[in-house]
Amino acid sequence: MKVGILTGGGDCPGLNAVIRAVVRKGVQEYGYGFVGFRDGWRGPLEGDTVPLDIPAVRGILPRGGTVLGSSRTNPLQHEHGIRRIRENLAKLGVEALITIGGEDTLGVATRLADEYGVPCVGVPKTIDNDLSATDYTFGFDTAVSIATEAIDRLHTTAESHMRVLVVEVMGRHAGWIALHSGLAGGANVILIPEQRFDTEQVCAWVTSRFRASYAPIVVVAEGAMPRDGDMVLKDETLDSYGHVRLSGVGEWLAKEIEKRTGKEARTTVLGHVQRGGTPSAFDRWLATRFGLHAVDCVRNGDFGKMVALRGTDIVRVPIAEATARLKTVDPKLYEEVGVFFG
Amino acid sequence: MKVGILTGGGDCPGLNAVIRAVVRKGVQEYGYGFVGFRDGWRGPLEGDTVPLDIPAVRGILPRGGTVLGSSRTNPLQHEHGIRRIRENLAKLGVEALITIGGEDTLGVATRLADEYGVPCVGVPKTIDNDLSATDYTFGFDTAVSIATEAIDRLHTTAESHMRVLVVEVMGRHAGWIALHSGLAGGANVILIPEQRFDTEQVCAWVTSRFRASYAPIVVVAEGAMPRDGDMVLKDETLDSYGHVRLSGVGEWLAKEIEKRTGKEARTTVLGHVQRGGTPSAFDRWLATRFGLHAVDCVRNGDFGKMVALRGTDIVRVPIAEATARLKTVDPKLYEEVGVFFG
Amino acid sequence: MKVGILTGGGDCPGLNAVIRAVVRKGVQEYGYGFVGFRDGWRGPLEGDTVPLDIPAVRGILPRGGTVLGSSRTNPLQHEHGIRRIRENLAKLGVEALITIGGEDTLGVATRLADEYGVPCVGVPKTIDNDLSATDYTFGFDTAVSIATEAIDRLHTTAESHMRVLVVEVMGRHAGWIALHSGLAGGANVILIPEQRFDTEQVCAWVTSRFRASYAPIVVVAEGAMPRDGDMVLKDETLDSYGHVRLSGVGEWLAKEIEKRTGKEARTTVLGHVQRGGTPSAFDRWLATRFGLHAVDCVRNGDFGKMVALRGTDIVRVPIAEATARLKTVDPKLYEEVGVFFG
Amino acid sequence: MKVGILTGGGDCPGLNAVIRAVVRKGVQEYGYGFVGFRDGWRGPLEGDTVPLDIPAVRGILPRGGTVLGSSRTNPLQHEHGIRRIRENLAKLGVEALITIGGEDTLGVATRLADEYGVPCVGVPKTIDNDLSATDYTFGFDTAVSIATEAIDRLHTTAESHMRVLVVEVMGRHAGWIALHSGLAGGANVILIPEQRFDTEQVCAWVTSRFRASYAPIVVVAEGAMPRDGDMVLKDETLDSYGHVRLSGVGEWLAKEIEKRTGKEARTTVLGHVQRGGTPSAFDRWLATRFGLHAVDCVRNGDFGKMVALRGTDIVRVPIAEATARLKTVDPKLYEEVGVFFG
Repeated sequence: MKVGILTGGGDCPGLNAVIRAVVRKGVQEYGYGFVGFRDGWRGPLEGDTVPLDIPAVRGILPRGGTVLGSSRTNPLQHEHGIRRIRENLAKLGVEALITIGGEDTLGVATRLADEYGVPCVGVPKTIDNDLSATDYTFGFDTAVSIATEAIDRLHTTAESHMRVLVVEVMGRHAGWIALHSGLAGGANVILIPEQRFDTEQVCAWVTSRFRASYAPIVVVAEGAMPRDGDMVLKDETLDSYGHVRLSGVGEWLAKEIEKRTGKEARTTVLGHVQRGGTPSAFDRWLATRFGLHAVDCVRNGDFGKMVALRGTDIVRVPIAEATARLKTVDPKLYEEVGVFFG
Repeated sequence: MKVGILTGGGDCPGLNAVIRAVVRKGVQEYGYGFVGFRDGWRGPLEGDTVPLDIPAVRGILPRGGTVLGSSRTNPLQHEHGIRRIRENLAKLGVEALITIGGEDTLGVATRLADEYGVPCVGVPKTIDNDLSATDYTFGFDTAVSIATEAIDRLHTTAESHMRVLVVEVMGRHAGWIALHSGLAGGANVILIPEQRFDTEQVCAWVTSRFRASYAPIVVVAEGAMPRDGDMVLKDETLDSYGHVRLSGVGEWLAKEIEKRTGKEARTTVLGHVQRGGTPSAFDRWLATRFGLHAVDCVRNGDFGKMVALRGTDIVRVPIAEATARLKTVDPKLYEEVGVFFG
Repeated sequence: MKVGILTGGGDCPGLNAVIRAVVRKGVQEYGYGFVGFRDGWRGPLEGDTVPLDIPAVRGILPRGGTVLGSSRTNPLQHEHGIRRIRENLAKLGVEALITIGGEDTLGVATRLADEYGVPCVGVPKTIDNDLSATDYTFGFDTAVSIATEAIDRLHTTAESHMRVLVVEVMGRHAGWIALHSGLAGGANVILIPEQRFDTEQVCAWVTSRFRASYAPIVVVAEGAMPRDGDMVLKDETLDSYGHVRLSGVGEWLAKEIEKRTGKEARTTVLGHVQRGGTPSAFDRWLATRFGLHAVDCVRNGDFGKMVALRGTDIVRVPIAEATARLKTVDPKLYEEVGVFFG
Repeated sequence: MKVGILTGGGDCPGLNAVIRAVVRKGVQEYGYGFVGFRDGWRGPLEGDTVPLDIPAVRGILPRGGTVLGSSRTNPLQHEHGIRRIRENLAKLGVEALITIGGEDTLGVATRLADEYGVPCVGVPKTIDNDLSATDYTFGFDTAVSIATEAIDRLHTTAESHMRVLVVEVMGRHAGWIALHSGLAGGANVILIPEQRFDTEQVCAWVTSRFRASYAPIVVVAEGAMPRDGDMVLKDETLDSYGHVRLSGVGEWLAKEIEKRTGKEARTTVLGHVQRGGTPSAFDRWLATRFGLHAVDCVRNGDFGKMVALRGTDIVRVPIAEATARLKTVDPKLYEEVGVFFG
């Protein structure tokens, strides 16, 4: 049996660990052959492949990014896109497809599976951890670790100069990275896209922190928005996803804090460093297990499914269902964490 | 209300995060007062306390170890130990006790609660992750991260010299650290206490790895034992828990591999570095949430319970039940990982 | 004898290591008493002090920032500033001053020493490594390490998406951080303030890198400027020194590269994370030795001097001379490194 | 012109950076061809080579170890060893040799150059930093960083349990790693091979540290020896250099401390992790500059020389002279650091 693999969307630490696990188990246990498609859906669309055997996956476990390359190519936006994919798969003798990606990438897989009968297995990938069907996605732990380490470092600068430091982290629609790294980093304010923030309240927390002779760290997700909606949009800025970004909320907030509290404030936008480099041990473990279970899905003919983490188990869920709903931060959890604000 | 806190057993990254969370929430939301007991059960046994208020927990989140100190003092082994504890608690006006510790520490809490009606709440702590009631314990992720980083480093030495490197990691009764760090570090053999290993099989994996022109890394838990039971015990060695250790299995294995395969082999015993230093972001998150929920147990009068992680939720389980059974590595999981051996 | 200590200017990893070494040696070997002044020159100007004895410096070696606080207060800009300092020193019985800082801070020390006979010893501090009298300043190695780690991480993102990544690092007047981290991180282009860059040449290197099937990393010091001077200035931006910044050169360059090469480009501005957090082992060593030798200067009555590193030796140079000339990157060294461009 | 490269002796972070720099500059600027010899002197002895061009050195900068492999093969111990090397070099058309190694490896190069006229250029390599001609060798900073990080971690364990922690680091003949990491890690005692230690004095420091309510960290170089020479040798132990080791001084010392002070003591032997993995930014910089200057030596026909660091300059020194004398820790420097003992 010949199985195709592709990685789509933004890169994410752990992609290579998935690829390696799929190939190792597929070749050794099931005798499969593999075809790597380049740059997400562009690969099968244009028939652009790389050989993928055991030597090809040696040494890639600790490497960030994806040896297959990635892109945001959406075959649904190309004329006869799906037909061309089917033809290319047929030409290459590829009988099943393992697609590693987020909502968009897996959405195409659903269409391929549902409408054209292409046997697909999904592996969830989003650094933002906002897929509802799985407890965690790989890459998230690495991003949180990097952001936490940055916040640890910024504390000393904040305190030496008695300044406010605003740290803008990734998270356009969900505040998971902000919430976890803010908590782990001992931030004094954490702002997430799920709940519009009250700039006055933020300033009150900042002021109360100074009153206790400490300098405040404010962690803000890039998608967070003020309630008192006078944020001036900064046009032409692309976010870390390559989309036009609503604003530079970190910079905006630092200026507002300076204006309203009279304290010096600085912004740091962590940006791409959050998604690059070697995956954390947790992400290597999760990504590897996702890969092992994905190839088992193929083996069992269990298509249209996505692997997911539940507790410490890897389970299978329908792809369509898994990508239907964004997993946002529960207001109760946000409130729980709120005890550390101010 | 006045609440006592103690940390018992081996130190573990995340203990301070628990203490901080308990105190922050307890003082701010519930108006509690806190008393820190020094060095585990020695504190209440001897009435040795430290003041514990919000200033006392400032800045401790990222610090490893425990500001309260720890010990293996077991009041059950002291004459009238339990009675002395009750008297000291009464004298100090302590109405509830939050005990952070492993099997032994929580076992005493169970006795105190069951037999003497002392209201106790437990927070599980074991770097080995071998408590059955919780998906993970804090400290484990840090230990796995440190071990994985060490294995990453050892690969280059192994390959430059075409040597076998045997890495001995913590885990006397359960192989979780070996399994996770071995998988994440791309080890070629992982040996755990749950399953006696066949030295011939290990040597076969080693040899096959060299045949593929790569140098093998063997990760072995300190409690792993050979099936072909001729391991010479190294007397008088203490393990990282302060107990007499069965053997120096890493050193023994390296010598056997040299003898049987003719290849050079070296051992590295990671030792105490696995349990020291700043907790990982994951462990800070988990430990903080355990602390927040432990103080909620006190608030709800829900005693005799231990907080535990299930998926992404913090739940409450009876302490007695939680410590009854060691959580060992499931043979199926070990087999799943075995695809990477050799 | 009573000795005052202050830290001025931007914070820098290693400041606490200097303070600890001064106090440890001064108290233990010479029996000195110490007075810490808060927030740079603001401390002696306003008589704002902190007690500084051995317990006060325990545990501060690995901590970034400065326990004394810092500021950019310049007493020369305050009416009777110098006189007020002399009066406050006299009132406190402070007979000598150890000033840890950059050009500005040490400049004041020179004035104090030369014009008013206040016995001063200087310890050089600049994260930018641009003081001519010393081989290296502490903090620089930490900044380079953090920037290098970030560049390591960005490589995988660049290659997964075949994008240009522009990394803006600190360095307003000197390109040391860019040069060292760019070389260590395997950057394909490094741009420094010492030499205006030719945007066309940068684009040619970028294009040639893509031709070799690799994605380019461009490291640019914040003070670098294009030769073809059409860079649009971004007003109101403060650089990491708290001064108005000439431009957001990283963002500007990424846009130019996109426009001229047709390739996607993204910017990451590392910002404050470069100067915060625990110092590297090298910086702890250097800062500690600076501290030990600074207190020896006091002991020897050798005032008006600054400690400096020459090879592996700590030497003494006149403060005035030391701060007279900026140490910029030698064109020959820049050319030597240029072999890796493109 | 065709140039051979080999790496001999123990592996060391930075070897690949040297190789890459030599090849990049040699090919691009001088049009040289390169031949890589496998496993140190074994390569030219047996004519075992690997192709070495620009694609072969891509991506190796951040990788520890050596892509050429290493060994301790000494051609002087093989019959007609030198003659066979000359014949193999002639057969391959190799006109000059760049040898990267320590005393032993460079010693052979000297013989080859002096007695047989083989044009050799040396690049110093010793993780121990004990070559007299150069301020620093690459690999040393990485080893010190890893050891310092380990010591940082061990502090929390020591203090949580009020135990002595003895950390054994590399350094058979010179105490540089112990001295630098011990100082940077805030150790309370540092023991080096250059000066036999007085166990009673060590115990006095340990006791005094406990008296100040802190737990002591003792850093000991593997080659350190007690003055009161009753150390029981542990036979058959190999040190990290593959030689029979005199003792397990760390373990011995921990037992003595327990016996004499009555305090619990534990040992951690850092071992191979000190020499593996990605080089620090400093080592990448140094190793790269060594490589660039080594190929310049070839270009200038300046043979029999070794590149060396003096301050911030790379200079050339006669190989023979460079390896004649071990660079040990100056007693004055050791005394300077001694202010932190106890």
